[in-house]
Formats: sequence, C-alpha cells, structure tokens
Amino acid sequence: MKIIIIGASGTLGQKVTAALKEKHEIITAGSKSGDLQVDITSTESILAFYKKAGGFDALVSVTGSGHFGPLSTMTPTDFKKGIDSKLMGQVNLVLIGQHYINPKGSFTLTSGILSSDPVLYGANLSTVNGAINSFVIAAAIGLENGVRINAVSPGVVEDSPEYFDAFPGHIPVAMARVVAGYERSVLGSGTGQVIEIF
Amino acid sequence: MKIIIIGASGTLGQKVTAALKEKHEIITAGSKSGDLQVDITSTESILAFYKKAGGFDALVSVTGSGHFGPLSTMTPTDFKKGIDSKLMGQVNLVLIGQHYINPKGSFTLTSGILSSDPVLYGANLSTVNGAINSFVIAAAIGLENGVRINAVSPGVVEDSPEYFDAFPGHIPVAMARVVAGYERSVLGSGTGQVIEIF
Repeated sequence: MKIIIIGASGTLGQKVTAALKEKHEIITAGSKSGDLQVDITSTESILAFYKKAGGFDALVSVTGSGHFGPLSTMTPTDFKKGIDSKLMGQVNLVLIGQHYINPKGSFTLTSGILSSDPVLYGANLSTVNGAINSFVIAAAIGLENGVRINAVSPGVVEDSPEYFDAFPGHIPVAMARVVAGYERSVLGSGTGQVIEIF
Repeated sequence: MKIIIIGASGTLGQKVTAALKEKHEIITAGSKSGDLQVDITSTESILAFYKKAGGFDALVSVTGSGHFGPLSTMTPTDFKKGIDSKLMGQVNLVLIGQHYINPKGSFTLTSGILSSDPVLYGANLSTVNGAINSFVIAAAIGLENGVRINAVSPGVVEDSPEYFDAFPGHIPVAMARVVAGYERSVLGSGTGQVIEIF
C-alpha cells in the first residue's frame, strides 16, 4: 500500500510513520521536512503536492495547528489560525485529494479530545476538533469509488508532557494506543468513524 | 431584558422574535432588514453593530449559511462559504460581543442536526454545526462575568418543507419545540449546552 503521511516529522507523525513503514511504501510530507513539502494552508500548495505524489492508497494527516489562549483576549484573527490550519488544511487535503486517491483508498484525519471535553484556553481547538469529527461522518457518505475517511481523536499523549498542565486531570494516553488508532483507520475497513483514543 | 436577535427576519427568526418580544425589549438585526444591519462575515461590521446596539443582556443568532452540494464537486471555495458565514460569523459575534454584553448575559447560537446525523450533500453544514457545538462547550468555561453560551441544534423544521427531500426519513420538528429551545437558552440558567431539538 502506498501511504502518504502529512506531518510525519512531528511527535505523533514519527511514531505513526515507524509503525506503517514496515509493510508499506511511505511518502512523508511536511511544511519543511519529509520526502515532499506541502503548506496545508494553501490550496495551490496542496494541489501541487498531489500532482507530485501521484496516485496513493491512504493519506494520514497528523498535522495542523490552532490558537491556545484565554477567550477574553481571543480575537477573530487568533481564531482563524486553527480554522485555516488544522480545520481547512485537513478538509482541503480531502476535497482536493479525492481526485487523486486510488479507489478503495482512505483518508485519516486528526481531531482530539477537546471537541467534547474542553479545557480553559482551548476554545479554538475544541471548535476545530468538533468540526473535523463532523466532517468525516458527513464526507464518508459523499466519497465515491469506495474511498473511506475517519478521524483519530486522541487525548493528551504521554509523549507530550509540555501539554499536561493545560489538561488538568487528564490521564495521558499511551502513544502505542494512539498509533493503533491510525492503523485501525488505514488498515481496517471502517468509514465515517471518529476513533476516540482517550 | 434587552435581547438582540440576529437573523430575525428568517423563518425561524420571526418565530423566536415573536415569542420573546412579549416580555422583553428586542433589537432585530439582519444583513438587510431589522432595526440594525450587520454583515456577520465582516468583523468590522460586527464591531460597528455592537457599538450601535449598546449594552445588551442576550444575543440570539439564528443566522448563517453554508454550501449544500455533492462532495465530489465540492471545492475549497464552496466549503469556505459555511466557514465564513455560519461558523466564523457566529463565533465572531461572541469573540467581539463578549466585550459589549452585560454581566450574566447570554449568547445563543444555532447549529443543527447535521453535526451528528449527516445527509448526502451536507458535508459543509455538518462540519460547521459540529464546530459550533464544540465552540459553545469550550467558550462556556472561558466567558467571564457570569456570561453564558449555548447552541440550539434543530432538526429539519416543519415550516421549511423545501428541505424535506434533502433529509430523507427525518421527521420534521414542530416549530414550537425549536422556539422553546431558544427560550430555554435565553431565559434559563444553563451554559455550555447543546440544546438538541430533534
């Protein structure tokens, strides 16, 4: 299987790449690193990326950022960061990528626990994660040629202690469980699923 | 109570306005009609609107549009319609409005059943509705001075038969139930709630 991993150099992306590369052809991608570069906030960059990557069987997106800070000082410009990156970046990978993916291929996006379990300062990422979850359940019934789509929604991961203070009382999730969520989406048969790992 | 209703001239807005105006001071607003005009896709317009409206106790948003059509031909530009209007329009009403609302005031936004129960062609509105639901649960813990926020998430409403064909098997919801959802948000004490009317 030919699998594209966007965000392959990140904390999570490295582990997902390592797990999938044993048995599959992997194309790693990132904004600055990887086999191919792509800026997910630019539709032109995404289009050029797919033309270079060629046909593929699975795309895994473990990328996208957002704004984290107090609501009382949050501006529309702050909020737009997550909308343009983690939300529309991932949505546009699908809207454009549906024309390049092989039949019976799959898209796997990343949301996160904040969609249903918010923390102070997390309004932007809650919104984006909720949007991604609803996008995959809706896109699943619109994709053609047997193409599947799921989201992996991790809790705060044990490998990211820098986030622990922002998630009081959250029990960090083992990285192996999160990686297994991506494997379930790519190698399994489900579609329209939000795979919660928390 | 001084209540601002954005989208007051719409099918739903008219009924919500009629229900609340018996006992409250209402300021109606819309893009072209109402006591005051506001273009929710423009942060400048929203800011000017709040400066004109003055302090208020509740804002009810029954406005915002999105794109409806096949995923296979949906473009990033199509998708942006719902993001800019129903999603960021409503979010920006809160981000900007939090600085103008009276203590213990409330925001009531509108999402919809597509967040969890998608229909073909509805990927943009599913995404937007899921985003609004997650925004209100997160914003509720960030708003200060006792300000509340909720979303009303209606199913297809009996007064909108033009949508029935797009929602096969959905049992239309009585308008009186939907209006009651807005009353519960504005006049009740809940916050961070998604009030599902379906």
